[in-house]
Amino acid sequence: MFTIGIDYGTNSVRALVVRCSDGAEYGVGVVNYPSGDQGILLDRKDSLVARQSPADYIHGLRESVRAALAQAIKREDFALDLVTGIGVDSTGSSPLPVDARNRALSVDPHWSGNLAAQCWLWKDHTSWWEAAEITRLAAEHRPHYIAVCGFTYSSEWFWSKVWHCLRTAPEVFEAAHSWVELADWIPAVLAGVDDPALVKRGVCAAGHKALYSRKWGGLPDKEFLGLLDPKLADLRDRLYDEAQDSSVPAGTLSAEWAAEFGLKPGIAIATGAFDVHYGAIGCGVAEGTLVKVIGTSTCDCGVVAAEKDVDDVPGICGIVEGSILPGFFGVEAGQSAVGDIFKWWVEGICRGDGALHGALMTEASELKPGQSGLLALDWNNGNRTILVDQLLTGLMLGQTLYTTRAEIYRALIEATAFGARAIIERLREYGIPVERVVCTGGIAEKNPLLMQIYADITGCTMLVASSSQTCALGGAMVASVISGQHESFDEAKAAMTSLRDEQYVPDAARGEVYDRLYGLYRELHDSFGGLTTAADLSKVMKRLIEIRQDASR
Amino acid sequence: MFTIGIDYGTNSVRALVVRCSDGAEYGVGVVNYPSGDQGILLDRKDSLVARQSPADYIHGLRESVRAALAQAIKREDFALDLVTGIGVDSTGSSPLPVDARNRALSVDPHWSGNLAAQCWLWKDHTSWWEAAEITRLAAEHRPHYIAVCGFTYSSEWFWSKVWHCLRTAPEVFEAAHSWVELADWIPAVLAGVDDPALVKRGVCAAGHKALYSRKWGGLPDKEFLGLLDPKLADLRDRLYDEAQDSSVPAGTLSAEWAAEFGLKPGIAIATGAFDVHYGAIGCGVAEGTLVKVIGTSTCDCGVVAAEKDVDDVPGICGIVEGSILPGFFGVEAGQSAVGDIFKWWVEGICRGDGALHGALMTEASELKPGQSGLLALDWNNGNRTILVDQLLTGLMLGQTLYTTRAEIYRALIEATAFGARAIIERLREYGIPVERVVCTGGIAEKNPLLMQIYADITGCTMLVASSSQTCALGGAMVASVISGQHESFDEAKAAMTSLRDEQYVPDAARGEVYDRLYGLYRELHDSFGGLTTAADLSKVMKRLIEIRQDASR
Repeated sequence: MFTIGIDYGTNSVRALVVRCSDGAEYGVGVVNYPSGDQGILLDRKDSLVARQSPADYIHGLRESVRAALAQAIKREDFALDLVTGIGVDSTGSSPLPVDARNRALSVDPHWSGNLAAQCWLWKDHTSWWEAAEITRLAAEHRPHYIAVCGFTYSSEWFWSKVWHCLRTAPEVFEAAHSWVELADWIPAVLAGVDDPALVKRGVCAAGHKALYSRKWGGLPDKEFLGLLDPKLADLRDRLYDEAQDSSVPAGTLSAEWAAEFGLKPGIAIATGAFDVHYGAIGCGVAEGTLVKVIGTSTCDCGVVAAEKDVDDVPGICGIVEGSILPGFFGVEAGQSAVGDIFKWWVEGICRGDGALHGALMTEASELKPGQSGLLALDWNNGNRTILVDQLLTGLMLGQTLYTTRAEIYRALIEATAFGARAIIERLREYGIPVERVVCTGGIAEKNPLLMQIYADITGCTMLVASSSQTCALGGAMVASVISGQHESFDEAKAAMTSLRDEQYVPDAARGEVYDRLYGLYRELHDSFGGLTTAADLSKVMKRLIEIRQDASR
Repeated sequence: MFTIGIDYGTNSVRALVVRCSDGAEYGVGVVNYPSGDQGILLDRKDSLVARQSPADYIHGLRESVRAALAQAIKREDFALDLVTGIGVDSTGSSPLPVDARNRALSVDPHWSGNLAAQCWLWKDHTSWWEAAEITRLAAEHRPHYIAVCGFTYSSEWFWSKVWHCLRTAPEVFEAAHSWVELADWIPAVLAGVDDPALVKRGVCAAGHKALYSRKWGGLPDKEFLGLLDPKLADLRDRLYDEAQDSSVPAGTLSAEWAAEFGLKPGIAIATGAFDVHYGAIGCGVAEGTLVKVIGTSTCDCGVVAAEKDVDDVPGICGIVEGSILPGFFGVEAGQSAVGDIFKWWVEGICRGDGALHGALMTEASELKPGQSGLLALDWNNGNRTILVDQLLTGLMLGQTLYTTRAEIYRALIEATAFGARAIIERLREYGIPVERVVCTGGIAEKNPLLMQIYADITGCTMLVASSSQTCALGGAMVASVISGQHESFDEAKAAMTSLRDEQYVPDAARGEVYDRLYGLYRELHDSFGGLTTAADLSKVMKRLIEIRQDASR
């Protein structure tokens, strides 16, 4: 039997046909969104705008699944009626306004040219004012709401965006019957749901981005929303009371879409989730196994048994029951920039390309830990975990007149590894075990220097998932469970996930040097991050010189 | 009447023929030292070695003066017998071993191939152990000795070098009758002095680098030198008891050298001094006028009336009576790297050349103060003043994913300007007035962006000396005074020095932004420099973002 995972990324959508018995990938289809700049609708007058066309999503759905199936059908043991389910993930929070029949508002020609009527992509930051205002109001009136997101509500999230639409494009807000996360909308489309009230909402998006919790009866109460705007309080009635985890299907495939693909109508459609959460499943996340999706930024996902009381870890933005695996708290952490920092250095400053990335990696590989005398903070795009502070910036220390580009390149990699270690230490400190780390994403596959440095600095063996499309694989795995191909997520994991042969094992000698450097990193981290306000930094540069001298011996 | 200034630089020697009545430059001759790598004798086995061949000095003396005179003689109103004196300056501390007849030891074929028998160039750092040991012993036994040099004796200075020779090349030490600073040796050579005991020693080299002071009876006492090595105590008897300032000549031109150049025998030879001290004279240094020699590093020279009690300013390495102008304390401060930092950035990191320097300067000129959000410390080569600490390194803070090379270039310029401001504030704080700043050196002449930033950050109008060879001009001025062409240094200054028309006047609005940035610079400076051990740096990045936002309005 087979299932299909569909992964809506920032610039393209990808469909993957997977064999349930062993995770073998039978077909893949990738479609770039045709509209805008690499699929993103921009506004020349406002660089914060990032929207997407819902029509692109439907186009991408049709074409990517068709292409994946066309590839699979060439294999002798594949047949369309062996497909038993579909799982969908997407970026988020990416909400779109819908009409009373769950159609994207923008398909109406009256609204199709209006940017506010499109999907508001996760990286749209126009609602920074609303985010700050929600943070302020919640701190005053509902501190428990934002305790779960590190006391800072983000402009990337649901309520900031919807409120911004209401404030700046009230005609769109008025015309919309409701708002649906992309991750929930696509499953509803596949299931033919034509009433927003009947759209099944995943607890992943709801819990992480819309302040949903069973502890306070679902979404934020109307009194609180009324403090923002009475119309948001009214909207609450047209949203949802319940969000569900992925043990429950979102629906079944409609006759129309079944005909479109040649699949059997009525097969299971999984509850949607955010990409990295399905990616965590595709990497085999389990209690004790941390999944790191390492790309332009990093997302860390872990799970911990729901009966444990871990719902309040300082600096960890998202801990939501069922958001990754049913029966477990899903724990989400991350670093705001990782690959983006290396890209900035190599392309923005050194003005190089892929070849220079390679050359610097080779040169940096020949350095010993501490040999450059450099130490950096990985905050060029703020700090998501554990400081939850976007108003932080990068720092580089220890430069001499002989410091090289490759030394700085390595110091930047090390900085992100120290940031990763700070996250792991925080998780462990609050009873969330991290025994192994499974990585996925382009950097995990292509940068062995980085992977070894991460192993040496965190003291964890770094493993790499076999699949290069772990998000779509995760969707297929969820579909396999809800369609009965596996009895449990554990069984699906055992059957469908695997690891690459290469492992990055921590080296004790390098680890000792990095322990000394991490101590200095934390001095900088805690001082500039505000964890201490009486810091003695007078020895930092001298210690770095000592470590540099020791390394040169 | 005319005088000649001869300036021994690190890679070349330059002679300048100057008219005493108005400072007009009639002839210049420049000779690169023929030996070694750009005139410096290196040791492939030890990168700290930097020596120079005394034979190169004699060759350079002969050829540079000849060339300068050959140029001057083409002018109708010049004649060789109108030359009334010669002044010599050099790098330092650059001591060389001499035999009992004041000949450089290395002219003896037995020693000519021995690196230890050459001149030990100022930038030779092989004696770092000896420097640390002198610092330690002086702190314990003669704290007043090193109070005058900021409590740290340097490997660049006289006693470290001589002791290192004794420890590592005892045969050279034994063969040497005495040691003479290059700045003292050349005047003695010109005067035909053939006994080291009769060499006139300038208080500039003696006071700044050899721990000489009248307060403790000249050089360090024999008991203290005996703690280093009894042979150094013995050497003291073969050095000198008195050092003199430039109001007293070093001698008169010998018949031999007079014949060599066609000059009159018996004309005055000035007491030698270090290059920047004569450069300060060539820039018209006076009480209230700070001279900045801005090049790879920066040297700041000021003078203050000898009757004032300013001999102990924390962090100011050198305050020596008569070291610049007779009757004044000479005050020396500096920054260990200035042009070298920009060179590192543009050539070492950005891999550019002179054209890129220009392009980055243009781009950086278009930025407003604070607009980049960056803040740097100028310590890539340590901090000479006011922290006197070589074990400090560079720091750059405020980077985002959009930070550009030009923004960093400007931030590095600003960092050196903040360092310059810290020096000026320290001087003023201890009663040394700074009312105007006269600059000289390649950067002062070629980098208007830097000059304007220095004006805006220090609040001082930045002036530029007319002459491009202020060190040699200073030598010629001293020679003009001791040969009676001017009655005083004030008169020589009025007649022979002038300023360029361009002035860099501080802008009040930019100054206000820079005041905010300087406050943050001092927070970093004082924390990492060890002036405070309970720093609150939690707001630094946020303040920089605020300033950046204000600048973008």
